[in-house]
Amino acid sequence: MRETLAALEAGEIGVEEAESRLAGYATTDAGRFDAARERRRGIPEAILAEGKTPAEVAALAATALDTTGRALVTRADEATATAVASAVGDAETDPTVDRDERTGTVVVHAAGFETPSLDAAVAVVAAGTADAPVAGEAAVVASEVGAAVDRVDDVGVANLDRILDQVDRIREADVVVVAAGREGALPTVVAGLVDAPVIALPVSTGYGVGGEGVAALEGALQSCSVLTTVNVDAGFVAGAQAGLIARAVDAARTE
Amino acid sequence: MRETLAALEAGEIGVEEAESRLAGYATTDAGRFDAARERRRGIPEAILAEGKTPAEVAALAATALDTTGRALVTRADEATATAVASAVGDAETDPTVDRDERTGTVVVHAAGFETPSLDAAVAVVAAGTADAPVAGEAAVVASEVGAAVDRVDDVGVANLDRILDQVDRIREADVVVVAAGREGALPTVVAGLVDAPVIALPVSTGYGVGGEGVAALEGALQSCSVLTTVNVDAGFVAGAQAGLIARAVDAARTE
Amino acid sequence: MRETLAALEAGEIGVEEAESRLAGYATTDAGRFDAARERRRGIPEAILAEGKTPAEVAALAATALDTTGRALVTRADEATATAVASAVGDAETDPTVDRDERTGTVVVHAAGFETPSLDAAVAVVAAGTADAPVAGEAAVVASEVGAAVDRVDDVGVANLDRILDQVDRIREADVVVVAAGREGALPTVVAGLVDAPVIALPVSTGYGVGGEGVAALEGALQSCSVLTTVNVDAGFVAGAQAGLIARAVDAARTE
Amino acid sequence: MRETLAALEAGEIGVEEAESRLAGYATTDAGRFDAARERRRGIPEAILAEGKTPAEVAALAATALDTTGRALVTRADEATATAVASAVGDAETDPTVDRDERTGTVVVHAAGFETPSLDAAVAVVAAGTADAPVAGEAAVVASEVGAAVDRVDDVGVANLDRILDQVDRIREADVVVVAAGREGALPTVVAGLVDAPVIALPVSTGYGVGGEGVAALEGALQSCSVLTTVNVDAGFVAGAQAGLIARAVDAARTE
Amino acid sequence: MRETLAALEAGEIGVEEAESRLAGYATTDAGRFDAARERRRGIPEAILAEGKTPAEVAALAATALDTTGRALVTRADEATATAVASAVGDAETDPTVDRDERTGTVVVHAAGFETPSLDAAVAVVAAGTADAPVAGEAAVVASEVGAAVDRVDDVGVANLDRILDQVDRIREADVVVVAAGREGALPTVVAGLVDAPVIALPVSTGYGVGGEGVAALEGALQSCSVLTTVNVDAGFVAGAQAGLIARAVDAARTE
Amino acid sequence: MRETLAALEAGEIGVEEAESRLAGYATTDAGRFDAARERRRGIPEAILAEGKTPAEVAALAATALDTTGRALVTRADEATATAVASAVGDAETDPTVDRDERTGTVVVHAAGFETPSLDAAVAVVAAGTADAPVAGEAAVVASEVGAAVDRVDDVGVANLDRILDQVDRIREADVVVVAAGREGALPTVVAGLVDAPVIALPVSTGYGVGGEGVAALEGALQSCSVLTTVNVDAGFVAGAQAGLIARAVDAARTE
Amino acid sequence: MRETLAALEAGEIGVEEAESRLAGYATTDAGRFDAARERRRGIPEAILAEGKTPAEVAALAATALDTTGRALVTRADEATATAVASAVGDAETDPTVDRDERTGTVVVHAAGFETPSLDAAVAVVAAGTADAPVAGEAAVVASEVGAAVDRVDDVGVANLDRILDQVDRIREADVVVVAAGREGALPTVVAGLVDAPVIALPVSTGYGVGGEGVAALEGALQSCSVLTTVNVDAGFVAGAQAGLIARAVDAARTE
Amino acid sequence: MRETLAALEAGEIGVEEAESRLAGYATTDAGRFDAARERRRGIPEAILAEGKTPAEVAALAATALDTTGRALVTRADEATATAVASAVGDAETDPTVDRDERTGTVVVHAAGFETPSLDAAVAVVAAGTADAPVAGEAAVVASEVGAAVDRVDDVGVANLDRILDQVDRIREADVVVVAAGREGALPTVVAGLVDAPVIALPVSTGYGVGGEGVAALEGALQSCSVLTTVNVDAGFVAGAQAGLIARAVDAARTE
Repeated sequence: MRETLAALEAGEIGVEEAESRLAGYATTDAGRFDAARERRRGIPEAILAEGKTPAEVAALAATALDTTGRALVTRADEATATAVASAVGDAETDPTVDRDERTGTVVVHAAGFETPSLDAAVAVVAAGTADAPVAGEAAVVASEVGAAVDRVDDVGVANLDRILDQVDRIREADVVVVAAGREGALPTVVAGLVDAPVIALPVSTGYGVGGEGVAALEGALQSCSVLTTVNVDAGFVAGAQAGLIARAVDAARTE
Repeated sequence: MRETLAALEAGEIGVEEAESRLAGYATTDAGRFDAARERRRGIPEAILAEGKTPAEVAALAATALDTTGRALVTRADEATATAVASAVGDAETDPTVDRDERTGTVVVHAAGFETPSLDAAVAVVAAGTADAPVAGEAAVVASEVGAAVDRVDDVGVANLDRILDQVDRIREADVVVVAAGREGALPTVVAGLVDAPVIALPVSTGYGVGGEGVAALEGALQSCSVLTTVNVDAGFVAGAQAGLIARAVDAARTE
Repeated sequence: MRETLAALEAGEIGVEEAESRLAGYATTDAGRFDAARERRRGIPEAILAEGKTPAEVAALAATALDTTGRALVTRADEATATAVASAVGDAETDPTVDRDERTGTVVVHAAGFETPSLDAAVAVVAAGTADAPVAGEAAVVASEVGAAVDRVDDVGVANLDRILDQVDRIREADVVVVAAGREGALPTVVAGLVDAPVIALPVSTGYGVGGEGVAALEGALQSCSVLTTVNVDAGFVAGAQAGLIARAVDAARTE
Repeated sequence: MRETLAALEAGEIGVEEAESRLAGYATTDAGRFDAARERRRGIPEAILAEGKTPAEVAALAATALDTTGRALVTRADEATATAVASAVGDAETDPTVDRDERTGTVVVHAAGFETPSLDAAVAVVAAGTADAPVAGEAAVVASEVGAAVDRVDDVGVANLDRILDQVDRIREADVVVVAAGREGALPTVVAGLVDAPVIALPVSTGYGVGGEGVAALEGALQSCSVLTTVNVDAGFVAGAQAGLIARAVDAARTE
Repeated sequence: MRETLAALEAGEIGVEEAESRLAGYATTDAGRFDAARERRRGIPEAILAEGKTPAEVAALAATALDTTGRALVTRADEATATAVASAVGDAETDPTVDRDERTGTVVVHAAGFETPSLDAAVAVVAAGTADAPVAGEAAVVASEVGAAVDRVDDVGVANLDRILDQVDRIREADVVVVAAGREGALPTVVAGLVDAPVIALPVSTGYGVGGEGVAALEGALQSCSVLTTVNVDAGFVAGAQAGLIARAVDAARTE
Repeated sequence: MRETLAALEAGEIGVEEAESRLAGYATTDAGRFDAARERRRGIPEAILAEGKTPAEVAALAATALDTTGRALVTRADEATATAVASAVGDAETDPTVDRDERTGTVVVHAAGFETPSLDAAVAVVAAGTADAPVAGEAAVVASEVGAAVDRVDDVGVANLDRILDQVDRIREADVVVVAAGREGALPTVVAGLVDAPVIALPVSTGYGVGGEGVAALEGALQSCSVLTTVNVDAGFVAGAQAGLIARAVDAARTE
Repeated sequence: MRETLAALEAGEIGVEEAESRLAGYATTDAGRFDAARERRRGIPEAILAEGKTPAEVAALAATALDTTGRALVTRADEATATAVASAVGDAETDPTVDRDERTGTVVVHAAGFETPSLDAAVAVVAAGTADAPVAGEAAVVASEVGAAVDRVDDVGVANLDRILDQVDRIREADVVVVAAGREGALPTVVAGLVDAPVIALPVSTGYGVGGEGVAALEGALQSCSVLTTVNVDAGFVAGAQAGLIARAVDAARTE
Repeated sequence: MRETLAALEAGEIGVEEAESRLAGYATTDAGRFDAARERRRGIPEAILAEGKTPAEVAALAATALDTTGRALVTRADEATATAVASAVGDAETDPTVDRDERTGTVVVHAAGFETPSLDAAVAVVAAGTADAPVAGEAAVVASEVGAAVDRVDDVGVANLDRILDQVDRIREADVVVVAAGREGALPTVVAGLVDAPVIALPVSTGYGVGGEGVAALEGALQSCSVLTTVNVDAGFVAGAQAGLIARAVDAARTE
């Protein structure tokens, strides 16, 4: 809050903007940025790059960095990532910029920014090659919330040995995200093998009837194992919910 | 054919009816019965009881018995089963009538009728209690075609041990039918474990979005294992196709 | 396990049944009962009464009581509840039978059965009168898992004061289930107001396009707040997942 | 009418065209333009640019300007806007051309054209950044009908404080349009807070199941508050209907 | 408010109930009744009888009568209507009970209750016989809000003369509700003929693809005339929204 | 047939090709061309350009010209039209090539080819500008079958005067095709005004729910007037069916 | 018209009713009856019994008989048929009442009523037993319009010989209606075999995905043969459209 | 296995990779390649090129060639095919590379690789030109499994003579794949004509409602003949399942 008031005093922002920031959001040309979200639920506000111009994303990212010490951009193509890097490059905070090429996620941290570190683990499990990018988005988000993330890839049910080999490892997590497209059988199988809560993350693979992740989502909704689900390709939501559960576990552990 | 001609000579049927029978179908008040189907593909013509009155079903069953030596009625309630038993009771062929209560299937055999006996095995696998009746319909049909049928029940993927315990047994079959509702993961898992062709048989369990077997059917269509599928609850079709494959194998074995 | 072996020794059950029970499930005429589920995930196996005869449900409930010390029946009409009470009435365990009329849930506990007691709280929030039964099913299941359950009813968003009045109370829970039908706006609003993980529970109210809970489910999948969802009317799944999270929190608290 | 007859007399148009214009529509190469619509309902005929070439749009706009003194083009890209500006540049009426870049709306007024000025107010409320362009289209249309328009942006329900802060302002309007995509909870919340009639304007945001505005539309149809809705992205219709209501209120005020 | 406090003083209700009523809703065994809704928007809270027992509806109606001086029940069968009449029969307010048989609407007014009387008119237009009950529900609600209601029946577009004959009459209304099922062409035709705002009310007639009102609803959403719509069979919502517009017009007239 | 035999004798084609042609279809690299269709039903085989390369279309067109004296290509872009013109340019038959730019239809006639001339009329009615190209495809096909075609454009129901002005003209036709997108009310209105059989031709206009012609198609299926329909944008089918009816009428007239 | 005026003079009906009848429709308690429809298109107005009480149907039938000399009731159960017979029993016209039990169609003719007799033939073809009732409805309607109707049953494509045997017979018709459910292949096959226009009549058989006639309807819309279609089970519409075509042919023949 | 160990010994791969390969899959940068699939079911693992970069596909193909002696790439455009050819060009195994242009299938065989040769035949039947590529994919896969493949093209039901001409040829196969789009009637017709098991392969042709192969798939699910189906365009699955059946027949023949 002090920074906002200082900026007001210094004439860098007006009264209206100060009021907005204190109310929990800041304004850029591309719309308001919800800085308060992080304070409320511990989840960084993600900037979905799809449907925005590189310039709009960069402006939102700069605001996020300015108000919360970091920025999280999802589904950014190369042009957008470059625009973000350039926009935050001159920041006094001397930030680091990391882009994961396969997921299109860009993470910006102000120098000295400390990611929370929770005493709780999230396993992010993916069925096949095509499911990995969406799983990766979930993993980045859970990491930013502060969870210890363990990724387990290529364990689709077409060859059961793969998943059976990894069960012990998955059982060590406090919460499990399972990404799968096509028929989406993996979340059901995993939820039958572990004790922790399982979140299904359907992926938009598959063509024809039930394609684009629909069969996978319906399979999660109909699962004969206990699990909850997010929408198709909603890696951010799955990672954030896993992060919230990890935060609850961490809080209980450190009470 | 001789019987038809004899019946014509004896004045029991008219010329038109004789012509119809020779062309491969017989007429009752409830419509034509396709006696030729059995000759063409080795699959007994099934009489679907749903949407017909007990009297209509009984008339069709009597015609079937008369023209092919047996009758197969599916989804018959008790009243229909009784009507069939009564209708065929006076037949000169002194038939046997078997009804499976859970599937509602009624099988009538003329005395002395010999069910074909194929040198080929069909495994009919079901995920849970609710899937058993539909699986049962498939099993009866495959049996009537002549296959040796082995039923494996209650091996849903929510508890993988169940299916893993039965893999060796299922591997002995020449073709496998796998019935499952809800999320329908079982056919995908089984097709990843066996060498024989697998036919998915989605079952109309589950409520809400993807319920009534839709998720299970879409899961079969999107399966990352190799398999083909029939429509929801189409036990007759799954059993008949398994029977056709068993016939092909039997024919090859006995060449 | 000892009981199973004793029952075998005593000739009450055969070898095959003993083997099945040790493998984690018991057989009744109505199919196998998965006793191991409770051991695996701490969630009692629920017996869905819909689509089964009262006699089938009663047999499964008796088996559940016998093998796990309790039985949980969902969506039971009065006839089924009576059949269950009668079936377990003679049990040596002298069980108690509780039926919640509005939800149709029946809980049977053997005398001396101790429900687990977790140091973790679940809030179950419902939008309107019509949402209460489904919310109630979730509440019963979470209670049986051992969570402390707080029910908050009639806080639909058509009158925001209702929900704003209850926010402090809801914030005390470690995990929140929010049941709503029609347009299903409540889970999104609640997830914007609390820090704990939120599970949406869409309810099959509403008619016309988007009715039967479809709009509510799609609203949860599209929510601009972070939350996960279960299928329409899946009170059991929502309560069980909340219970799993409560177990994780309880385990962390008591480490 | 006089202008039409004068044009006929001057030989600028033929008899057939004159007859058409008097019957209420004019012909260009791209089809007939319904000039009478403005006379009938006070709503300017909008020219939807999508699916037409820049030349076709420009021709229709020139006819609109010619026959009604103004032109309203929606969803125009830059090329189309340029074509329109160029086409009407030579008009004797010396028109002004305004283009709103985010909504793609182009408004052309003949010099001296007086937009109606109604004594009635329309509030146009939008949930988030992505909803603003569609809301903007509604606002432009309502303005052209003559209403006093107040735009309230970025008040999505994920942070209730935003909307609660603006309620008094919204309550001053005679009719309210509420644009929201994703889960579309905002129209329901607003309709619970104000007395005026509310029109929901679903926006095609969101991906996966219920995406592209479907969940938002179904949420409006299922709303537990009283409101009516238009189709996804139908900013023109929402703005025009709000304008019709404003006209009714204005007429009553000035009786 | 005085009545609530008096009831509290008299010991007829407890403190908690008094608080609830002052907060705007009262509690019965069947859930809370939103008495404040009438004060907020002038629309009586309707009690949808479908899915509730006669006793539940009667209890809610008695509370409504008690707290607001009237009760409005929709889709009540005869048993429910009787239960309501009986439940309110002993009320000190000596109420009148009117039931419209075709729509199933029951209106209860306390003796001396004065329905608001607005200086504004609503036309309720119906295409065919099957559309009349749903239109009737809209008409009753608009009347209860206080509008002067004119019903125009049997003017479906299969015979255009019918609707053309009634145009002058419909044009006298300040707002128009148009009920139609099947292909739902009538709202589009009417909105092309009148100046007032039009609300489409799709009706669940028609079978096969697009049946149950779906084609009519989609036709309203796609209309090439300006109009807004409610969900299929949502007579209450259409009537209430028409009432809100009538209230706005009345307020302007009487300023 | 003589030409085929002559070509065989001349060595221009092989025996297999001759046999194919006599059996009613000719082979090109892009597949078989069904020359017999014209002989069977009087409808020229249309070559749908969408999804084929210009070269493939040109080859099929050349075969069509060669075997039937004409070629009809639908949905051809400019490149395809050019390829066709070039491919048939060298033909000994010295054909004429006509392309309708708005519909993308290309008609090629061998010099001296005589289009059949039926004593029967088809009216092709279109609601708006966007419906005209699809209507145009129907008109071209009906013309090629030999009907006298009268096109009536821009008579959408948003302004009833337009269609009422043209009723007498439409009543002169023996069969009527009515093209409309959006809500598709026009076919229902027209079928209520004329005696001749009406064929609805839904057009893929409109966005959001019910868009892309779905509402228009469902409106035709649900119409309260008597009419039949073709699929969305199926101008060829509508024109061909109208042509078949015109042929039947012509045959009756000339008996 | 004279009868109406006489009834007015005799005081049997009032001025308003007389005016209505002359305008083309009569009023009963169950709504208006469109007597003019018959005059306009030669199609008797059908009274759909589904969703109406026997008394309502009987009243409409009596009015129909009174104003047009006949009545056509579709989908009447036995109670409705009895009510109709009883209602028209006392009519001075001494009518005949025919009910087809399988289709539920009831035809009432005043004594001396002469059904039109057209010089044109309609073939009504049905695939299987379950398709016959819907086909029957079409046949009755076409007969009432006056066409010579030939019914061809049980010619489904599972046994091609059946349909090939009947081709010559079907080719004698001027227009062909083809009823089929399940996969609905028959209309496509027939349209490939005959020259006359073909109308597909999808039937609501089949279960699971694509069931209830949906696959059959979509098959007609996608047919690679030229045909038009009506909605699922719309026997009346198919028969009436066939009748309209027959009328056009008859008119041409008798010019 | 020896090769893997040799590669390990030679230091070409690490211990982890060796372990993976022995467990049945190999790792490339683009994910794991399931080499064990071929050993398990005799079906070569196909690399679906869609959604992968040419480089990713080439890497997977090289791994496949390395571990199984061949590679099968489906839906490869020219750039991908070139990348594959280039990537395997330097392999010591001196492979052959065959690309089918119409199907986009690329087959790579190491020098000396012997495709299995089964004593069993697969017929691959296609309705029209547009169905041939998908059918071709099935044919290539069945060939690679080792079946003798006979392709029968252009036998759509719009002209029954075509398919009747080819029946004897199709009857010689042990299993039949039938590819068809649009209304998809061909699989039903073929299954009524032959004794062997039939697999429907719906193709994504057709536009409007039921387009993109949906009507064809639903037609297969609803077929009144016995057959099973795969998803739309799933040529690989159809060919692989046919191959599995051929393998079963071959095994029986050679016992």
